[in-house]
Amino acid sequence: MNYSIGIDVGGTNTDIGLVRNDGVIISRRNLPTPAYADYHLYVSDIMDQINEMLDENKLSFTDIQGIGMCAPNGNFYTGCVEFAPNLKMKGLLEFENEFHKYVDMPVVLSNDANAAAYGEYIYGGAKGMQHFIMFTLGTGVGSGIVIDGKLVHGSTGAAGELGHAILIPHGRKCNCGREGCLEAYASARGIVQTYCEIRREPEWAARINEGKIPQSTPDAEVTSLMIGKAANAGDPLAIETYRRTADLLGLAMSNAVTFSAPEAIFLFGGPAKVGDPLLIPLREAFDKYMLNIYEGKCRILTSQLKDNEVAILGAAALINLRH
Amino acid sequence: MNYSIGIDVGGTNTDIGLVRNDGVIISRRNLPTPAYADYHLYVSDIMDQINEMLDENKLSFTDIQGIGMCAPNGNFYTGCVEFAPNLKMKGLLEFENEFHKYVDMPVVLSNDANAAAYGEYIYGGAKGMQHFIMFTLGTGVGSGIVIDGKLVHGSTGAAGELGHAILIPHGRKCNCGREGCLEAYASARGIVQTYCEIRREPEWAARINEGKIPQSTPDAEVTSLMIGKAANAGDPLAIETYRRTADLLGLAMSNAVTFSAPEAIFLFGGPAKVGDPLLIPLREAFDKYMLNIYEGKCRILTSQLKDNEVAILGAAALINLRH
Repeated sequence: MNYSIGIDVGGTNTDIGLVRNDGVIISRRNLPTPAYADYHLYVSDIMDQINEMLDENKLSFTDIQGIGMCAPNGNFYTGCVEFAPNLKMKGLLEFENEFHKYVDMPVVLSNDANAAAYGEYIYGGAKGMQHFIMFTLGTGVGSGIVIDGKLVHGSTGAAGELGHAILIPHGRKCNCGREGCLEAYASARGIVQTYCEIRREPEWAARINEGKIPQSTPDAEVTSLMIGKAANAGDPLAIETYRRTADLLGLAMSNAVTFSAPEAIFLFGGPAKVGDPLLIPLREAFDKYMLNIYEGKCRILTSQLKDNEVAILGAAALINLRH
Repeated sequence: MNYSIGIDVGGTNTDIGLVRNDGVIISRRNLPTPAYADYHLYVSDIMDQINEMLDENKLSFTDIQGIGMCAPNGNFYTGCVEFAPNLKMKGLLEFENEFHKYVDMPVVLSNDANAAAYGEYIYGGAKGMQHFIMFTLGTGVGSGIVIDGKLVHGSTGAAGELGHAILIPHGRKCNCGREGCLEAYASARGIVQTYCEIRREPEWAARINEGKIPQSTPDAEVTSLMIGKAANAGDPLAIETYRRTADLLGLAMSNAVTFSAPEAIFLFGGPAKVGDPLLIPLREAFDKYMLNIYEGKCRILTSQLKDNEVAILGAAALINLRH
């Protein structure tokens, strides 16, 4: 009982890992998610991969504590994936039930931001913390909230969508159809949009040739990675882009503190990797917007898990949750 | 063991109640809070009142499950009141320890909004709900959050200050010294300020004589009660005041839903008593700002506890929480 299985259902790849309880991924496998339109076959193929990994390591299912799965719209309460728009498998995918046709052990589902938070709690920098929040920056902005050592799933299973807390009423259009969400500003796309807006501002347009990103690069070709590199190379437009992003993210984080008074807020994902150009103004904004009673009581930290391990470790960590 | 004691430490009055487990207040007493500069004497006098109530009802301490106390800055973890600005008793008030000099039973502290939420859970309209949030509107805006049937106290004991989530960046000055907090708009003072701002807007100034509040009433004499009465009497300015208040409160509530996906949000306090002029536009705004995955899954409800009972019942309810 010293191992668990972590499965990350991505739009492109399904990563399957055999995880030792100290957080080492012993073996890993990969399946192409879009190859599956039927989830029964998908689970059957995943089970084949799990069996191979166990054989290879001379282990059996009695060594496994459970299977954790993170998937878009993965619901902790129902053990199902509910109508995930990015998967070819359609409708209600009853993964927990399906795995139970093969194995008699806990099978726990959640979404990727929740899994990232719980992976940090079980294997990463949040070990021993009873109250923290994880923000994941990427294509979107996700969040996972831990209170009293438990992931918050709420009444529906869909709690922890702080990327869609409205930060600027009637602000920038968000992918969710609403306006002014944090995600519209702090996602990779939001950061690119901020950069492109800044370089059109008259006072900045005049300075454009100081920048590291050629003025001729069309908006559609600017990426957050490019802006991150430029910021670290001293590009004033890119630095200003991260400063404004940090101001809003710091505001969102200080608002989150009024909810659960966490010990720490963790940051994970591509746009967070830029480092100081984001983190320095982020911590400044966080302090600036913080209600006095919380001053100095919550730190902003970066994830201590590796990029290519967080999804599997996060999924595997979920088995520590019980319904 | 079918009774508990609820103590509400207010700036003016200290209400002490003997509460039967079905939520009936059997006896109640009152002490003038400002008469006490020493908390040892204060607790001694409270104990005298409790003893009188027990005698009067032919009960003894063996019938009492515990003592719950709600107080400004009451800290669940430490059992202390920490530097409450509105009390004459100064410094760290170690109430839990002090009560334990007299009785050997659970003594649980929290603040008033948390107590109101937990009172609703144990004795009111939130019975059986595992996930809900209470907003209390009054001089300030407080909140109490219940997740998985437990009050959220966070890492410091000071979680659940949604009145100080920033709703309008760089918005209206708040009493906390920051800008744009929900409290600056949805407290009694915030509602009055909104009313006074509206009646100076050119398009509304022209209509001022339609209003029920005499144009000659100085800003400083306008009260939220007055605006509430005027709204219910059809005063268009007062109705517009509540519409704008409701829009921002609905936004704040929909943001709170992204955190914990509650089944319901409860509303309590003077400004909430106006009824339809607040509740109708509030529910509209709540729906308008709601992220699609939560649509129709969270209701706005009003507290089912009586005004003059909520503080004692909320305090008494706290004994159901364990450290």
